[in-house]
Amino acid sequence: MMTDQALPLASVTPLAGASAATPNLFELLAPEMAATEAVMQDFLSSRLPLLALISDHLLSAGGKRLRPLIACAAAALSPQGVTSQARSVGAAIEFIHTATLLHDDVVDESAKRRGKDAANLVWGNKAALLTGDFLFSQAFALIVDTELTQAAQVIARAAGRIAEGEVFQLTLKNTVISEADYFQIIGAKTAALFSAAAAAGAIAGGADAQMQKNLYTFGENFGLCFQIIDDLLDYKGDPDRLGKNTGDDFREGKVTLPVIYAFENADETERKFWRDSISDPDLRDEGRFKQALFYLQKHQSLEKGLQKARHYQELALAALVALPDSPVKTALSDFCQTSLNRAA
Amino acid sequence: MMTDQALPLASVTPLAGASAATPNLFELLAPEMAATEAVMQDFLSSRLPLLALISDHLLSAGGKRLRPLIACAAAALSPQGVTSQARSVGAAIEFIHTATLLHDDVVDESAKRRGKDAANLVWGNKAALLTGDFLFSQAFALIVDTELTQAAQVIARAAGRIAEGEVFQLTLKNTVISEADYFQIIGAKTAALFSAAAAAGAIAGGADAQMQKNLYTFGENFGLCFQIIDDLLDYKGDPDRLGKNTGDDFREGKVTLPVIYAFENADETERKFWRDSISDPDLRDEGRFKQALFYLQKHQSLEKGLQKARHYQELALAALVALPDSPVKTALSDFCQTSLNRAA
Repeated sequence: MMTDQALPLASVTPLAGASAATPNLFELLAPEMAATEAVMQDFLSSRLPLLALISDHLLSAGGKRLRPLIACAAAALSPQGVTSQARSVGAAIEFIHTATLLHDDVVDESAKRRGKDAANLVWGNKAALLTGDFLFSQAFALIVDTELTQAAQVIARAAGRIAEGEVFQLTLKNTVISEADYFQIIGAKTAALFSAAAAAGAIAGGADAQMQKNLYTFGENFGLCFQIIDDLLDYKGDPDRLGKNTGDDFREGKVTLPVIYAFENADETERKFWRDSISDPDLRDEGRFKQALFYLQKHQSLEKGLQKARHYQELALAALVALPDSPVKTALSDFCQTSLNRAA
Repeated sequence: MMTDQALPLASVTPLAGASAATPNLFELLAPEMAATEAVMQDFLSSRLPLLALISDHLLSAGGKRLRPLIACAAAALSPQGVTSQARSVGAAIEFIHTATLLHDDVVDESAKRRGKDAANLVWGNKAALLTGDFLFSQAFALIVDTELTQAAQVIARAAGRIAEGEVFQLTLKNTVISEADYFQIIGAKTAALFSAAAAAGAIAGGADAQMQKNLYTFGENFGLCFQIIDDLLDYKGDPDRLGKNTGDDFREGKVTLPVIYAFENADETERKFWRDSISDPDLRDEGRFKQALFYLQKHQSLEKGLQKARHYQELALAALVALPDSPVKTALSDFCQTSLNRAA
């Protein structure tokens, strides 16, 4: 069964080792993913020791490599399959993702990232900031080298959307955001790179415009679904959530969908509770977290959130319908469903 | 006479207003530079208000637009002249430059930038960091839109070099660096974008490989010359140095070429003086700055630095020799000489 743990790339023997009748997406694309990993390592080797060390720290901490996986899957569904350009697309997008994690840690003053001590604490904020810049420049170089202007445009647009979303989020700090704001933020935070990975992967695989559009739509909606689920799990607990603990969002004063739903239906006492919790770090202790859970349950916020995630999952799956059937298509669809099942 | 002040773009009437027989580079390229400025403004408008505000803060603070000027000059010297692609190259490089200034301010905790309060102090480090990321993504988008793969590669490589150089500098903090280290740092800090602007401008202007190479070499050596001069002026005083004061580098514990030369020939007392000054912020007061100036004079460090700058200026000018003669070539060459004359 597919879990959401760190992808143990080294230990995934390609198809030979897969015994199940229906191999999952990671298994199906293991050779392509290993090749993508090699692209990333190549690009980071023979560099300044400190840079390599910090990049390694983050890259070796694993992460799920979801974005390269989506890029490879989209290319695999396209006429030319997983070309070397598709691998570069995957690697470039993972670099951008890692760069944003590094910069997020600086912005959030985070202590943990992917289960390891966050780079900003180990190496200092300055090194984390500059390593992020370095990774971003390498992503730029990787994607330019593919000579796929259209793929580069898709990725550049996504990078801009991420930065805009981050600034937008900053302007809303310490307020109970609206549902619309929430979707703008997670659109930038997660759907931007999921959709770019799918569309740019499709371009690298020689897909036509309609197929690119379908895969973009898949990535966008899957990204929204995935992030909603992740935000629900922060209140449900999930030992497989790499390097994260239940209640992290509450303790950081981060407003996510469950809180928005609870707040919408809250009475005055509850509204005061949420406002205080969001604005005052001293009002986010264990006891108040339990109180928060009680309010979420009272208003069925997690169930409503799950419903919303299911809505985006359906949009994602609908976008796949027109694509030719293949084992990768089945696995991608399963992958989307398994992600949602984590919170069901 | 050309000065190194902020380029008063709005007030530069194109050639009609220039009365001198030999117009300078800014005057010669005023229409192209105004068009480049418009590209930058277009790219930043209709965005999140905070982003536009911060980007504006920096862009409106002026800066000398040296990099777009070099890009336009290189294109003007090339067969097709200053194409819209050349303007995009200039705008993209200015965005990258501005992004690195924003991130530098976060790293250095600077208080002033281009004569205005530094963005990190006005808007907070987080907004400065994220706006830098945004500008970087917009630079990426701008250059990708030109569909000039080669120009994009040159710029991507320069961006990587800058980030590596910044990390390298970080690892050397509080030490008296060697002359070789100094050149690696200013190569990344200044020559990287000067050479990229010249080479990518040439590519956008349809230059052949040899011409691209010549202009790259010009940019690289002019960049080194320019930065050495800037570092000398920090000890000589120059009221035209936008937003900077004499002694800034000393007060920040930054080791530049004059200090390196003074240290090379220092006796034990002097070496202790420099080591203490560099490692302890409390040992960089006005009295000690005067002492530093005395040591620089004793070892003729500024003269030696000027000699070195002249060496790179000669290499820069030599790279222009093979290019066809034109008013822009003469102006570019004058521009290079005027830069050096600031410190002579």
